[in-house]
Amino acid sequence: MLRTHLAGSLRGDHVGKTVTLTGWVARRRDHGGVIFIDLRDASGVAQVVFREGEPAEQAHRLRAEYCVKVTGIVEARPSGNENHEIPTGAIEVNATVLEVLNESAPLPFQLDEQPGDEARLKYRYLDLRREGPGKAIRLRSKVNAAARDVLAHHEFVEVETPTLTRSTPEGARDFLVPARLQPGTFYALPQSPQLFKQLLMVGGVERYYQIARCYRDEDFRADRQPEFTQLDIEMSFVTQDDVILLAEEILAALWKLVGYDLAHPIQRMTYAEAMRRFGSDKPDLRFGVEITECTEYFANTPFRVFQAPYVGAVVMPGGASQPRRELDRWQDWAKQRGAKGLAYVLVGEDGTLGGPVAKNLTDDERAGLAAHVGAKPGDCVFFAAGPIKAQRALLGAARGEIARKQGLIDENQWAFVWIVDAPLFEPAAEATASGDVALGHSAWTAVHHAFTSPKPEYLDTFDADPGSAAAYAYDIVCNGNEIGGGSIRIHRKDIQERVFKVMGISHDEAQEKFGFLLDAFAFGAPPHGGIAFGWDRITALLAGVDSIRDVIAFPKSGGGVDPLTDAPAAITAQQRKESGIDAKPAERKPDAPASE
Amino acid sequence: MLRTHLAGSLRGDHVGKTVTLTGWVARRRDHGGVIFIDLRDASGVAQVVFREGEPAEQAHRLRAEYCVKVTGIVEARPSGNENHEIPTGAIEVNATVLEVLNESAPLPFQLDEQPGDEARLKYRYLDLRREGPGKAIRLRSKVNAAARDVLAHHEFVEVETPTLTRSTPEGARDFLVPARLQPGTFYALPQSPQLFKQLLMVGGVERYYQIARCYRDEDFRADRQPEFTQLDIEMSFVTQDDVILLAEEILAALWKLVGYDLAHPIQRMTYAEAMRRFGSDKPDLRFGVEITECTEYFANTPFRVFQAPYVGAVVMPGGASQPRRELDRWQDWAKQRGAKGLAYVLVGEDGTLGGPVAKNLTDDERAGLAAHVGAKPGDCVFFAAGPIKAQRALLGAARGEIARKQGLIDENQWAFVWIVDAPLFEPAAEATASGDVALGHSAWTAVHHAFTSPKPEYLDTFDADPGSAAAYAYDIVCNGNEIGGGSIRIHRKDIQERVFKVMGISHDEAQEKFGFLLDAFAFGAPPHGGIAFGWDRITALLAGVDSIRDVIAFPKSGGGVDPLTDAPAAITAQQRKESGIDAKPAERKPDAPASE
Repeated sequence: MLRTHLAGSLRGDHVGKTVTLTGWVARRRDHGGVIFIDLRDASGVAQVVFREGEPAEQAHRLRAEYCVKVTGIVEARPSGNENHEIPTGAIEVNATVLEVLNESAPLPFQLDEQPGDEARLKYRYLDLRREGPGKAIRLRSKVNAAARDVLAHHEFVEVETPTLTRSTPEGARDFLVPARLQPGTFYALPQSPQLFKQLLMVGGVERYYQIARCYRDEDFRADRQPEFTQLDIEMSFVTQDDVILLAEEILAALWKLVGYDLAHPIQRMTYAEAMRRFGSDKPDLRFGVEITECTEYFANTPFRVFQAPYVGAVVMPGGASQPRRELDRWQDWAKQRGAKGLAYVLVGEDGTLGGPVAKNLTDDERAGLAAHVGAKPGDCVFFAAGPIKAQRALLGAARGEIARKQGLIDENQWAFVWIVDAPLFEPAAEATASGDVALGHSAWTAVHHAFTSPKPEYLDTFDADPGSAAAYAYDIVCNGNEIGGGSIRIHRKDIQERVFKVMGISHDEAQEKFGFLLDAFAFGAPPHGGIAFGWDRITALLAGVDSIRDVIAFPKSGGGVDPLTDAPAAITAQQRKESGIDAKPAERKPDAPASE
Repeated sequence: MLRTHLAGSLRGDHVGKTVTLTGWVARRRDHGGVIFIDLRDASGVAQVVFREGEPAEQAHRLRAEYCVKVTGIVEARPSGNENHEIPTGAIEVNATVLEVLNESAPLPFQLDEQPGDEARLKYRYLDLRREGPGKAIRLRSKVNAAARDVLAHHEFVEVETPTLTRSTPEGARDFLVPARLQPGTFYALPQSPQLFKQLLMVGGVERYYQIARCYRDEDFRADRQPEFTQLDIEMSFVTQDDVILLAEEILAALWKLVGYDLAHPIQRMTYAEAMRRFGSDKPDLRFGVEITECTEYFANTPFRVFQAPYVGAVVMPGGASQPRRELDRWQDWAKQRGAKGLAYVLVGEDGTLGGPVAKNLTDDERAGLAAHVGAKPGDCVFFAAGPIKAQRALLGAARGEIARKQGLIDENQWAFVWIVDAPLFEPAAEATASGDVALGHSAWTAVHHAFTSPKPEYLDTFDADPGSAAAYAYDIVCNGNEIGGGSIRIHRKDIQERVFKVMGISHDEAQEKFGFLLDAFAFGAPPHGGIAFGWDRITALLAGVDSIRDVIAFPKSGGGVDPLTDAPAAITAQQRKESGIDAKPAERKPDAPASE
């Protein structure tokens, strides 16, 4: 090594030792000809002082982010000059030799300032020298290690699945790769290793995991990346409880990294309850502001707006004192979400109800309303009325907005919940409305995916009554973020075929799309299930950063562009010619032959 | 869990316990109405016996690879019926309940037979249930863990680098991905994380590693895969010795997995010595059969064939007794390698030389020849004469062939060697002849890559005399396989520019191709170096298998086809339309702007 010590490791008991450090000039100060630098390496910072002679002369030309090698004697700082803010604050290194390993051009931004997003990505190598970004990347490495420790303890087998795979419909668009040697055909980058991990279960691997790169060619919505990472797990001979138990052990190990003792078992909540109380399948449980159902309450109301299939309310504590323009802003907020507005009632300090809605209600309705929704004098009650799904979503969003506005969220709290018993199927129209690809040609499509098992109690009835069947699935939510989800899979060919039938997927279509999986299931596939954790999101939560970009070494900006390398880029005519891009498209096989 | 115990875990001290096992029917035997099955799970095999009642009736319909759940009582096998070959051989499980979890169709091959290559890949999920393939995949997981343990101990940071990157020329063809949101442009899949790991060093990460997927769109030569894996490492503030020290610690940890105590430091050999003695930069040192240089010896020979810039010889022990047709086969063998033939001399039991070459030599040459090349009576001496590089390669191949034919290779031996001091540059014509892309437009191209530093002693002279400069690079060779390689990189912009100049890469071209890396080097890039291990090959060596296919969960067959999923495949017209494949090609930027 070019150094004898790490800068951040020096302490009082090194005094008198000759050390050689390497690193970067984080700060340089000139105190009457004596040059002080903060020398930074990955371990931390040490103060180096150049008092006299040649090193001091050389040190005059040091600039920010020069890369240097310094030899000197560790000395105690003069009394009163200690810096108690940093671990090396008791000492300084009296330099006797200075070697500039590399100079630095003037920086595009100072490392102790927050650069703009575009500059951060373009100069990511400078951004990573900053304390926060550097720490986030290091934390990610520890997150990986902590999860692997748990998995190794349970004898999971780490398996790499292919990146150059077959295009299969999984709800988003595939990235495609022209296959030069099979002109006119394409590989697809995997949206997840789902099919391969199920094949591994058929293969008797029993316990699989992978920190897996996944790819979705989506329009770049907020905080999505075209390539992202999940901790992908699959187990054979398990029930839902076994997967949840393992997942909780992993989560506890991860949160221990940030000093949090995650109590488990984590509470479980049915999908139905989450939608009813919080208007979301990923409720943020750090605060209350629950939805009160008012449909019954207004069953006989004369107020036309509340004569709806569903009426619900959320209470904004102290919201009655909002100025008129704030209440107007709520209307705009609701309209941006596709609603007509957000009806409200203000509860006066004397308990009388104000606002435009109040006068449309009956005396009885007014009298009992505050008690029914749990509002106190000084509160504001927001209402949504109409089709149940959209209204609950609106109220769910409103409760989050209320919590943020009123400071009800404890940023140091961690609130975990499992959401279980989600519907197995949803109307295909709802899926496509939310941007997913609805597989099949029926009124129903799978909520999770086509390989998710119905819960055991719905095995006989799910095809007769698709809307009532619950999936044998579980999502883990933290502070309102879905950080993982999984299911017990279908392992029997007959059940898989019935599920496809509900979804309107013909035998031929199923064979063409995932015939290889169905074929595999014919050879004694074991019962199995698994889970996938959103690794970028989990790491971002642990790092205390808002964006997953901050925990990805080289993220893409909007439009999938990397401002650092300028990818994607034009290719040469020769590359284009050789790649097979322009080859005549191969014909789709009408039906892949089933094996035996 | 559906089971209480793992099948392979049952021992004599479980006798009397009621257990529930899950797994597959590996074998079924009917002994006069009593059914015995070998129940296999990931842990091993246990014998289950169905003696009477309903389970026995059910068990009659069990077939190979049915997936079952069995409850029963562990009993000692009757005296004399123990099986000492398996860990569970002292016991059997007397079944009281049998549940068929899933039936199996008749198998395309029996699991205790060796199926053909194509069948193995098409039914990889069945192949993985076989003992050898299953073990190889499990070993790979342990290999990963062992390496990570060493790296974690040295505080390496695991970082994921992007898969959707910019096309950069690195010696092979890139796989390309059309960028839908930037029509006409393409991402490239990385041939290695080389540029990103160097950027991480500029970013102050100091110690990086990644078990990284890499991609090369090559014609499928023997045992190459379009996607492969390397353990990728980079370190700052290091010399060659530091990287080698770490690499040896990792290798020792890996070989410990197979019970081998790898003595280190591992010997080092210069590239020049390896070529001289073994005719290869990846010599197999499990056997001798070294090349003897005879150029001087035949300096004044009348034999025209040996009047050549180089003459070398290898001795085949006992080769004089080869029948004539064997000696003819050697000629064919040499011709397949592009040589005219392979001259030979047979040393008789009385020391006289035979074969067609002998009579062309002088008496003196004949008299001293056996001693010069170290041949004994009964040996055969093969000669190659001509341009040095090709002749050494021929003799190097011949020594391997001799060792195989004569059984000189101890298959249980591990012979490691570092090859150091390889040339920095090679004639571009030689690079292109061996199938690589020669970067730049000069007579010289880089042997490793354009970012490899000259050794310190050549820093001043490498551009004046490119042919003499040694690279600050190191390859690790095991039993004749190059299993890893790396270098100390250039971190100074001035040296990088001089290297580009030797290679005939203009400033503009360099900026266009890797301007982002050169720009990064301007900001105090630290001295750094690293190594990459061929993870598939290393795991194959440890698993004792010949092909890297055997240590890849879902490998491709020739032509890059996956017979299991039938990838690559045709895409739909809609996919094609949306993907941007047919977008008008974007124009290449003539020159990416330098930063600042």
